[in-house]
This record gives sequence, C-alpha cells and structure tokens, in this order.
Amino acid sequence: MPCTPQVLATVDAYWRAANYLSVGQMYLRDNPLLRRPLRPTDLKPTLLGHWGTVPGQTFIYTHLNRAIVAHDLDVLYVSGPGHGGQAMVACAYLEGTYSEVYPAIGQDEEGLRRLFTQYSYPGGIPSHVSPECPGSIHEGGELGYSLSHSFGAAFDNPDLIVACVIGDGEAETGPLATSWHGNKFLNPITDGAVLPILHLNGYKIANPTLLARISEQELHDLLRGYGYMPYFVEGHDPDTMHRKMADTLDLVIHQIRDVQQYARAHNDPSRPPWPMIVLRTPKGWTGPVTVDGKPSTGSFRAHQVPIQVEPARYDQLEHLEGWLRSYRPQDLFDRSGRLRPELAELAPTGTRRMSANPHANGGRLLKPLRIPDYREYGVAVPTPGGVRAADTHVLGAFLRDIVRENEAARNFRIFAPDELLSNRLSPVFEVTERQWMLRREMHDEHLAPDGRVVEMLSEHQCQGWLEGYLLTGRHGLFTSYEAFIHIVDSMVSQHAKWLKVTAELIWRAPIASLNYLLASHVWQQAHNGFTHQDPGFIDHVVNKKASVVRVYLPPDANCLLSVWDHCQRSMHYINVVVAGKYQAPQWLTIDQAADHCARGIGVWPWASCSPDVEPDLIMACCGDVPTRETLAAVSILRTALPELKVRVINVVDLMKLQSPSVHPHGLPDDVFDDLFTTDKPIIFAFHGYPFLIHRLCYRRTNHANLHVHGYREEGTITTPFDMTVLNEIDRFHLVRNALKRLPDRGEAGDELDLHMTEKLIQHRRHIRTHGVDMPEIRNWSWTSVAQPTTL
Amino acid sequence: MPCTPQVLATVDAYWRAANYLSVGQMYLRDNPLLRRPLRPTDLKPTLLGHWGTVPGQTFIYTHLNRAIVAHDLDVLYVSGPGHGGQAMVACAYLEGTYSEVYPAIGQDEEGLRRLFTQYSYPGGIPSHVSPECPGSIHEGGELGYSLSHSFGAAFDNPDLIVACVIGDGEAETGPLATSWHGNKFLNPITDGAVLPILHLNGYKIANPTLLARISEQELHDLLRGYGYMPYFVEGHDPDTMHRKMADTLDLVIHQIRDVQQYARAHNDPSRPPWPMIVLRTPKGWTGPVTVDGKPSTGSFRAHQVPIQVEPARYDQLEHLEGWLRSYRPQDLFDRSGRLRPELAELAPTGTRRMSANPHANGGRLLKPLRIPDYREYGVAVPTPGGVRAADTHVLGAFLRDIVRENEAARNFRIFAPDELLSNRLSPVFEVTERQWMLRREMHDEHLAPDGRVVEMLSEHQCQGWLEGYLLTGRHGLFTSYEAFIHIVDSMVSQHAKWLKVTAELIWRAPIASLNYLLASHVWQQAHNGFTHQDPGFIDHVVNKKASVVRVYLPPDANCLLSVWDHCQRSMHYINVVVAGKYQAPQWLTIDQAADHCARGIGVWPWASCSPDVEPDLIMACCGDVPTRETLAAVSILRTALPELKVRVINVVDLMKLQSPSVHPHGLPDDVFDDLFTTDKPIIFAFHGYPFLIHRLCYRRTNHANLHVHGYREEGTITTPFDMTVLNEIDRFHLVRNALKRLPDRGEAGDELDLHMTEKLIQHRRHIRTHGVDMPEIRNWSWTSVAQPTTL
Repeated sequence: MPCTPQVLATVDAYWRAANYLSVGQMYLRDNPLLRRPLRPTDLKPTLLGHWGTVPGQTFIYTHLNRAIVAHDLDVLYVSGPGHGGQAMVACAYLEGTYSEVYPAIGQDEEGLRRLFTQYSYPGGIPSHVSPECPGSIHEGGELGYSLSHSFGAAFDNPDLIVACVIGDGEAETGPLATSWHGNKFLNPITDGAVLPILHLNGYKIANPTLLARISEQELHDLLRGYGYMPYFVEGHDPDTMHRKMADTLDLVIHQIRDVQQYARAHNDPSRPPWPMIVLRTPKGWTGPVTVDGKPSTGSFRAHQVPIQVEPARYDQLEHLEGWLRSYRPQDLFDRSGRLRPELAELAPTGTRRMSANPHANGGRLLKPLRIPDYREYGVAVPTPGGVRAADTHVLGAFLRDIVRENEAARNFRIFAPDELLSNRLSPVFEVTERQWMLRREMHDEHLAPDGRVVEMLSEHQCQGWLEGYLLTGRHGLFTSYEAFIHIVDSMVSQHAKWLKVTAELIWRAPIASLNYLLASHVWQQAHNGFTHQDPGFIDHVVNKKASVVRVYLPPDANCLLSVWDHCQRSMHYINVVVAGKYQAPQWLTIDQAADHCARGIGVWPWASCSPDVEPDLIMACCGDVPTRETLAAVSILRTALPELKVRVINVVDLMKLQSPSVHPHGLPDDVFDDLFTTDKPIIFAFHGYPFLIHRLCYRRTNHANLHVHGYREEGTITTPFDMTVLNEIDRFHLVRNALKRLPDRGEAGDELDLHMTEKLIQHRRHIRTHGVDMPEIRNWSWTSVAQPTTL
Repeated sequence: MPCTPQVLATVDAYWRAANYLSVGQMYLRDNPLLRRPLRPTDLKPTLLGHWGTVPGQTFIYTHLNRAIVAHDLDVLYVSGPGHGGQAMVACAYLEGTYSEVYPAIGQDEEGLRRLFTQYSYPGGIPSHVSPECPGSIHEGGELGYSLSHSFGAAFDNPDLIVACVIGDGEAETGPLATSWHGNKFLNPITDGAVLPILHLNGYKIANPTLLARISEQELHDLLRGYGYMPYFVEGHDPDTMHRKMADTLDLVIHQIRDVQQYARAHNDPSRPPWPMIVLRTPKGWTGPVTVDGKPSTGSFRAHQVPIQVEPARYDQLEHLEGWLRSYRPQDLFDRSGRLRPELAELAPTGTRRMSANPHANGGRLLKPLRIPDYREYGVAVPTPGGVRAADTHVLGAFLRDIVRENEAARNFRIFAPDELLSNRLSPVFEVTERQWMLRREMHDEHLAPDGRVVEMLSEHQCQGWLEGYLLTGRHGLFTSYEAFIHIVDSMVSQHAKWLKVTAELIWRAPIASLNYLLASHVWQQAHNGFTHQDPGFIDHVVNKKASVVRVYLPPDANCLLSVWDHCQRSMHYINVVVAGKYQAPQWLTIDQAADHCARGIGVWPWASCSPDVEPDLIMACCGDVPTRETLAAVSILRTALPELKVRVINVVDLMKLQSPSVHPHGLPDDVFDDLFTTDKPIIFAFHGYPFLIHRLCYRRTNHANLHVHGYREEGTITTPFDMTVLNEIDRFHLVRNALKRLPDRGEAGDELDLHMTEKLIQHRRHIRTHGVDMPEIRNWSWTSVAQPTTL
C-alpha cells in the first residue's frame, strides 16, 4: 500500500529540517533558529564545508527512515560521497542520537548553536562522516570504498540491510568500479542485503561525472551487467520526487524481502537479482539557484560552500538568510528549538535509528573468538634446525581450527586475492570452502555458496570487505603476497586513522584488529621475479600512529603460531605478520617460541657464546630467510674462528627496536644496550629495506656500530639463494661484513674473507651452469660449534 | 573479402610454432627441435613458468599479424594477463626481432636452445613480458594496468591501434574495472584506437574468474555499459576458432577505420561505439587434457607448468614429448632450426612487427619538449618575505606556456583526478581545455573534445595513462593531492622497477621522467581534515632504486619554477615535487632560486649569522610551511637572544641529505659537515614524517645532534597554523626545542622558553574562541634582526 500524502508531507518537512541543520552547520555560530535577522557576527569567521552532496543524502536518509518504520527494518547507512558529513550529523541529531552520545549538544536552541558551531571548526568535528559521527562505519575522506565496506558489513548479518550511498565521483575510482561485483559473494540465506544507491548529482569538484553523462541506456546496461536491477528516481521537484522515492523504496524493500524469503524457504542460495536505486538530483538541490549571477544549484559550483558570505556585502547575508528561511524552520522546530514531535515520529526509535544501529559501533557486538591452544599445532623441534616445515602451512592447521571453532558463531572470515592456496593455507579447506554465488563447474575445487573464505582478485576488495566486517564487530584476516599489499597502502592509512580517532572516543568500543598475513614474501619470489619483490609495506605501516600498528616477523612456524595467536586475540590494532611459505629449518620448540615471542626480541643462547662473556660480535636477524642466513654465517664463523665470541639476537616484534618514547613496545635503552652492547659491531640481517632498521634504532647507544643488510631493490628470476646474494644478505656477505668490522680478525680472518669471495664466485658459476643452488646451500643445516660444518 | 583457407592454415601453423616455442621455453635446455626422444637431461632442473594464458595470447598475436599485413596496420600489443611472457618472446623470436635485439639468440637450432634455456632461468629473462622483451611497454607482474597503459599510448597517436589483451583475472582488479572508461577521453580524430581483447580463459591461480562465470547476457550488458560493442569469439576447435577470429578481427578493424574516417572526414569527435573482442578459450588450450588423471586444460591446473616432470617418471617425459610433438615442429622449422619461409611470410616486416613497433621503445621517438625560460615567470621578490604568492599558481603560468609551445607537437599532457583547479593550476586553461568526449552542458567549464588536460576521479587511471604516454615517447605530469597519491604506491613501485631495468638495456632508449606535482599537501589540509593529511609518499619513493628517484620540496614559487624546469627536462626519473598552493611569503629572487636549486641545499645568508663565524645553532628546513615556521622561529630567537648565532639551511633536493655512496645527489661528508657543523645542535623542520630525515642522515657526523620536527600523524579540521602546532613543527615549539639544545641559554633563554609556552596557550584559546589564527600569526612576516618583531 503506497504511503499517504500526509506521510510524504512529513517526509518533506523532516527533509527540510535536515537540510536546514546542514546549512546551519556550514554557516552559523549563533542565531540558530533565525529568531532575528542574520548579522555578520552570527556567521563563522571561516566558512568550510561541502554542500553539493548534502540534500541528496538527507533525502535518502529521510526516506529510509520512513521505510524502516513502515517495514520494521534493520538498516545501516553508509555514506560514500565524502564530505557533506553534516548531512548525517543533522540526521543523527534529529533522531536524538547525537545528544545521547554528546550530551552537551542538547535538543534545544543552545544545543543547535553548539551543533552548528562545532562543525568544521577548530576543536570541533570534521566535515566527513568521521568516527565522531554516530552511525558511521565509513569516513569517506578518501573515496572508493563505501560499497566494499557495505558488503563486508552484510556478510553474516542476515537481517541487516546496508544502504550504501555511492557518489558519482566516487564511482569513477577503481576500487568502487570493481566493488559492484560483491554481489557474486553474498549469500541470500546467511548474509544480509546491500542496497546500493548511486547518487548522480552530476559533478565532482570541478568536472562533470562520467556516470551522469553517459546515456541512460549505457548506465542501465552497466548496472545490469554488474548484476543489479536498477530503479531510477530522477527529477528535481520535491513533491514528485518524494512520491517516486517512497514508492521505489517500498518496491526494492519488497524485492529484497522476496529474494531472501525465497532463498531461505527453499534453501536456494542462487544469486538473486539484487535491486539498486539510481537517484539523479541536482547538485546542491534546494540551494541557491545562482550566486553572483552564476549558476550554483545543478552545477559544480555547488560543491563546497555556495555563498561565500563576506561581511561587507549585505546582499550576500540576505541571500543566505533567504536560503535558510526557505526551509521554514519555524514550522520544523518548536520554541525551545526541539524538532516538532509530529515530525520526530517519522524516524524509528532506539536501535532502529540508523545513527544508533549497533552494527555501526561494532565493538559493542564483538564476541571473543574461540581460539584453540596454539601450542597443540606446534612443530616438534628436537634440535634447532633439526626439522623442516612450511611455516604458513603449519599456521593453516591452526586457522582451520579457528574456523571450525567459530563456525556456529559465524564471526570469522578469511579474505584473499586468489592467494590462499599459493600462501599454503590449504588446511583451511578441510573444514570450509570459498563462498561463491556464481555457476560452479565440474572441475572447480573448494567453492560453495557458504564458506568462511572469500577470494577475489582485488586487494582493494579484500581490504574493504575485511574492514567492513571488523567495523561491524567480527574477526578476520587478509592474506596476500607481500609485494602486492602495497596496492592497499592508502586504505591502510585511512583505517589506521580511523582506529586512532575511535580509540579516543569513549562511546566507541574497540574492534578486532586487522590482521595481515603476508606470505610469498620478497625472499620467496625468486621464481616470479622483480615485480613480485617489495618488502616496503612495513615501512609504510610504521609511519602510522604507534598506538595502532604492530609488525611481526616470526622466524619459524612455532613463532608464527605464537604471534598469530596474539594478533588474533588483540584489539584495535593493525597487525602485519610476514611469514615464509616454503619448507625451511625450524629453530624453536613451541615453548621456546612462546617465550621468545612474548619478549619479542632475544638472544638465541644455543647459537651464541656463553651469556657470561662479553661478545666480540652481534649477529642480529629479523625475518625467516635473514635468520637462516645469519645462522649459516655464524656456523661459518664458529668453524673458522673458534675463538670468536658471537651473540645471535633474533627480532620477532619489530617495534621492540624503537625507543619506548616512540612506540609502547620499544625496549628500554638499558635493556637494548645489554642485548646489543654499547660498542661491539652488530651485523643485522633484515627482511626488508635496511634503512628501516636505522630509522628505528638511530637513538640507540650502539647505533654507530650497526650494519644492516636487507633488500636493496635487486632481483630477477633466479634461485632462492641467489636472491639473498644479489642483495648481499647471504651468509657469505654477512661473514665478510662481520670480518670487516672486527678490530683484529687475524690471519684466519683474512683467509676466511678470501674463502667467502671464492664461495660467491662458485655460487655464481654454479647457478649459471646448473640453474639451481649449490648442493652445500640446498643441503645446509645448522650445526653447532661442536659439530663443525665442512666448509 | 574473408581470408582464404590457405591463409588460415598458415595462421594455424604459425600459432603452433609460437605455442611450441612457448612450451619449449618452460621445459627445455637442449634438444630444442626434438631431433631425438626427450631425455631427462634435456629438461631444465627447475620448471618455472605459466602456461594457462599462453595459447590464447599466441592465438591473438598470430591473428593480429595476419590482420596487420592484410590491412597495413600500425599495432602495439599490450599483454595484460601477467606471466606467460614466453608467448610474446616466442612471437618476437618468430618475427626475427628477438635475434636482432639479442644477436646471441640466432635463428637456428643453437639460437632455439639458448632461447629456451634463458627463460625463467638464473641470469636469463623473467616470466613476464618484462622490459627485456622487445615490443613490450607493460610488464604485467602486478595486474590491473594494461588498459590504462593502452589508452595512454593511444593519446595523440592517431594512426596507432593498441591491441590490449586483458586477462579475466586482471579484469577483477579495481584499476582495470574503471579503466574501461578510458573511451570517454579518446578523441577519434586526433588520438589512436584501443582494441580491448578480453581473454576469458576461466580461471585465475586457483579460482574461476567472475567475468567467465556471469551470464553471457550480463557480460554483454557490462561491456555495452562500459561503452563498447563487444564481439564474441568463443570455442576450442582451432579450425572454427581461426575462422571466427579472422573474420571478427577484419570486422573490428573495419569498424575502427570507419569510425575514424567518419570522425576525421566530418571533423566530428563524438564518442563512437568502439569495438572490442571477447575471446573465450580453454585455459591452457592445446595443452595436456589431463595430468595424472586430473583435468588440466580448461581448469585452474593449467595455470603454471602443467606437467611437473620428475626425471624418475618415464611416462611424464613421454607425456611432455607427446605434447610438444603435437605442434608438429618438423613442419614448422627447417633443418637449420629456422621458421619455414612460407610461415614467416605471415608476419609483417620491419617496424610493422609488433615486437619492433617503435612506440614500444618510446625513448627512440622522444622529441625534447620546448620549454620557455622559467625565469620569465619568476615572482619579483624585493626582500625575503616581502611579497606573497601562491606557488603552484605561479607554476601554472609556466605550465600554460609549455602547453602552448608544444601544442603543435602534441606530445605533452597533464593528468589529474579532478584536482587541477583545486591545485591552483588554472592558468593552464587559458590555452587548453580538458579532453572530454561525453555530453557537455551549458554550465560546464573547460571541457572540449580536444585538450591537453585529462581528468578523471581515479588516481590509478591518471598514473596508468601517464605511464603509457611516457613509455611511448611523450612528456607529461600528474598533479594530485599529496595524501591520495598513496593510492598509486604500488604502480609507482612497478614503474620504478621498469625504469631501473630498462636503464640497463642498451637497446632501450631513455624516456621522459614521470613528474608528480603534489599540492594540497599535508600542511594545507586543515580544512579537509585528518583523512587528507599524509606526507608518506616520499618515504615510499625513497625506498626505490636511487638511480631513478628524485624528491624536491621547493620552499617558494621561484624555487618551484626552477625545480620544475629541471624535472620537465630530465630523463628516466621519477620526480616527486611537493609544493604549496596558498598565498605564502616568497623568499628568493629568481636568480637566487636558480642558484639555490642548482645546489639543492644551502645556507640562506640573509637569515643567518655571518658566514665567518661558527654558529651556535643550525635551523634547517625542508618544505614551504616548515621553512616559514623556521624563519619565524629564527626571528623570535634573534629578537630575544641577539647574541645567538643562528645558521639557516634550506633543503630543496631531499636526496642531498643522503650519503653520496647511497644516492648520486648525496652531499660529500665534508661539505655536509661544513654546512651542519660536527657538533652544534640542529633543529630540522621537515615537511613529512620526521624519521625520514634520520633515515637519510644517520651516517652523518653530527647526526646525534639532529632534532627533527615533522608530521606526527596528528590533525583534524582546524586552522592552518594549528596543524603545525598539533605536530609541534610551529615556530613556538621550534624555539623551545632550540633552547633546550643550547648548552647555555641564560636567563633570557629561560624567559623566552616560558614566553613560548604562553604563546601556545594563547593560540589554543584564540582558535577555540575565534575559529581563526591569532592576528600575529596571520600577519606575520619575516623581519631581520635589524627590524625586530614585536613578540
């Protein structure tokens, strides 16, 4: 039954109220109800904000409010267009949520004055739907991720509808362009619905938008091609548009319900024809038609503050006042400044309010993950280096059981860009599948309509889905090749910023950490070549606020288990874990690993000189391959120079290196000095770019004696060991550099130096001739001084 | 007229030859013509490579060869799918180009043996269409950019057809998903054509692909929606497929010609219905049907090396030999190992060969840009700080005239994500427009079918277009907000790798540098807030190979002009220039700026103590806002402590700080020591993250006394000056830190310290109350000691 003209009149009044508050936020710091004519002193001294997207968003929000009440819906609102945050703030205020969260901003004239003043003002709130805005899980400062976030939020929330407003500017970005395909992964039985609302207002900052200027036929084809049934709501006359929008919303809600009811009644998870809405309205709709003789509404000039009021110009002040009064505030708010009750009734109440939807404060919904004891998955390591294992494959069994333990709770997912198997996590597929709604063929493997793994060849999608999933109170991880995680550098920055700000808001509960498992790392891409070799994501992440970032480089499988257990339990961090996927020597027992990872850094006594003596040399390492090469170098040194006292330090938690004043994990200076000495040479083999270690350690006492080997941007298709040689992080180069730093290496040292050079020449010849590494490299295993190697 | 069965038989033979060579490259190091049964020793010890995409690509390449000859076409081949590089290597070899470029790999049996051995082998060539592959401008190691590169190559090349093979895996990435929209910017009169060939082979590494599994109708709609006329070529029977592909290619070539001829004859640049091809073939087509009882061809198992031959298993060797012989090599190559002449005739000759297309070695085509004398655009600066200007706006006039001077040559373009005007480059629109093929409306500005500016809200597109434009021998720049350039971090990494490798290939001519103009930088985003504040792109870039990256932070407009002149003339670099866009004090005359920028770093004598005396304190700065704050701090110090000897050093070329052993621009240590002293405190105000300066300077003598202020990931919507206060890079914090580092600051120092704290409190109160910075901040201007400020 279509809604009545009376209801639509209420919708219109409510919309006018939201628009009035939105304009007020841009301009006013006093006289919020226009009880007297506007004076220059009523205006903020600097007018900052964006108007163009606002009236379309308030229109959508208001209509959703009506629909939520009419159909008893659970709706999460995601505002994609960026800026125009005052629209959602206004709606949250009208619903009362804003005053509940921020009691200083009450439902009266003084509250309105404060609401207006704080917007885009020093000490106030940003112009986006930032973390400060109740109801938001998506800030929109950087465009392109709204739809990925929405699908992430909808996974495993079968009763939720995520209404995602997509700006036509945002729609031009790559991440948004591929995120439409999220519908190929959404299960209509077990997941919720995403309702994309493509808002065509025609312009970006200074340019028209593509999707607003292609033909209606092309746009229709495009959206059909993406797998949606688009419904068009187009126009500018409010009355006509209210009718169209209300009818269309009723229609699409019915369609979503039908689709879900059918799927659930028939247990048929086939991908349904999900509906979507295309809303075409003028940019800055209801704003000033022209400003200073130039068109404003309906043009790019409506993007920011349409009338830049200068105090000296009375006509501009009048123009602004006319605009504000066009919303008839006296009809909308009572004498005290409160929204009239007959209007307030339009909105839902309690947690049905989109601004108070519990999913938008996901930490509140978060249930701890059931995590089995990671020690039970440990590799038996009778002697250091005595067995080999593939680290991520061992982790795979642990992840498999995390999946199994939480299957019923449906709150854990793994996202990957078609790299889960390549990263050796196959044990996961013993208990679950990849969720996939498209046609399956006979020879496919591990595809099902329901599964805990979601794979699409788009790092942007994986990141956006996981963020949406975590922000709505669930757990998960993203596994990727190390080099290509740079693709989401900017998304990580934005998520780190979100975490930093939300940590400072008491009403926002902490969410689960965003966990990266980066396998197929730089030292394991000898077969894929130079393009696949880049360890710089760590560098990017450590620039983020220290309170939210953690970086771990476990040297073996047991350490990886311990680190992962910690990360998966942790809250409100970005955890980056870099791990190996190939068979490699294992160093620590599970108990040793637990202890070592709890410390994050430590001496490996079985590889070091007696703890009672002062070492001559520190050999430090961080990362699996650098650890192997360091131990190989140590075995060479011990054999050739048995008198030399070497201490081996392994770093798991990279942040231990930084000063405690900079990062909470940082080792106190005296502990650092005890470990690294204050005057002995340190040869440090590091997984990534060597400068990072200097950047972290430059304040330490012994920094002048620190010599770091790492990735030097050298590589191609070659052998695994040759990758280390090309970057001089191999055992032979490590030994040579150690010898160079020893004050008195003696004749034996000179001989060893020469021998190392010979070895490097042998290596080069051997791989050219045979295409594989020398047997002594392939068959190398750690031996203590008691069992000298034959070098 | 359709081509004859005889021609198609030749096409088939040629295709078999290309496939044979592709399989040979994966497996063999001897017996390349199978003159005897395969032995284990004929095989490479490690089998590395990708097969799945190969036969589809050789099929396309071979058919393009026929079409090039039949229609006398100039075609550039872009291979998007990644890996499978041996397909293009095989085709380049069959055309003779490979032997011309690499004479050691001749057209005989020994040449074949070397061709096979080098592939995916230490010291050999990578498995992608890497820089080493003649005819390639696109490596494809990281997926998603082929179509952007193709449109970039087609701009201003009216006779060129860029055949872009898009893998169905690659098609899932965000960048690729939006790059289809490139057709909205391609002028059919003045630009060339892009022919997308979407290759659906159904699988990625381990998953099916989305576009291969949606319905034919949806795929058709999607591609129509993107603005293309898709032609489908689907099947697996070679004979049928040859006929279909040949006919379809003839059809689309005719359509491209018709479209262009019509547009050019009628001077009608309306966007035409560009054709494209959807080629659906089995993954690993013509490969082994099953391997060890499991399906290979047509499944994800054909992705890499289908038969992993183990020497012990005779049946596998036989299986491989059978596969190789299925191409009938004896019919394809003569006794000497050369392709039979009747087959070789299929391919075009000379520069019509796609592997020898001059556009694929763009440096060869590069014409120097006509650049007017930048000094003529200089701002008159009678005294340091005596005038104000908007740096990028001044640059805009210079860019405008570069556009004008090269209008006829049509070899310079500016790419931007709707930020050109926001970055204050409006003078450019005095002489050109934004190129735009969609409908124009009355109130649009600066849109035209032909123009030197291309804007779309996708940093990926801007980056990809510019790369394609530069790689084919033209010039250009990309201007973006500083924070959002992180979106293309990974693309920059790949371009840097391409530059590094091509610089080592003598047959590749250097190309024009990729120039970034990053405005709207971190210190100018007070109005847009935290999400828009990120100076970390510099950190990302400096990890790339020192031989290809340069970073400049000009402190004023004249320095920006000088730096830009240098960058725009430079070759084969990635130049990152960060500049201000707001009115700001100007420091150097154009001659001083030229001198300062040529040095890259230097003392500013007019702000420093006499060069004859040893300073007590170094105040260093890098970036426009840090420079302003440093000078303001110096003016405070001079006024309060007139005896204090302060030296001001400004850094324009960031790489000057690094050791000369690390970067070619690095200052020698003795020069550095002369500048920065070996023992005096250095207060360094830096534009970006402070750790970067430590990372660059840690080897310098006086590093222990270096105290860096920079962005600390603090910010929100606030005043411009408050952004500096939040991050403690403002004048008051700089003074406080300087005082802290002085060995004896005296009572006057104590008083000044207290005064600075008061100032900070005043500032905080003032912005809360008034919403703008204190007048003394807004009205501040540099004054020398002779003209003390009133603090």
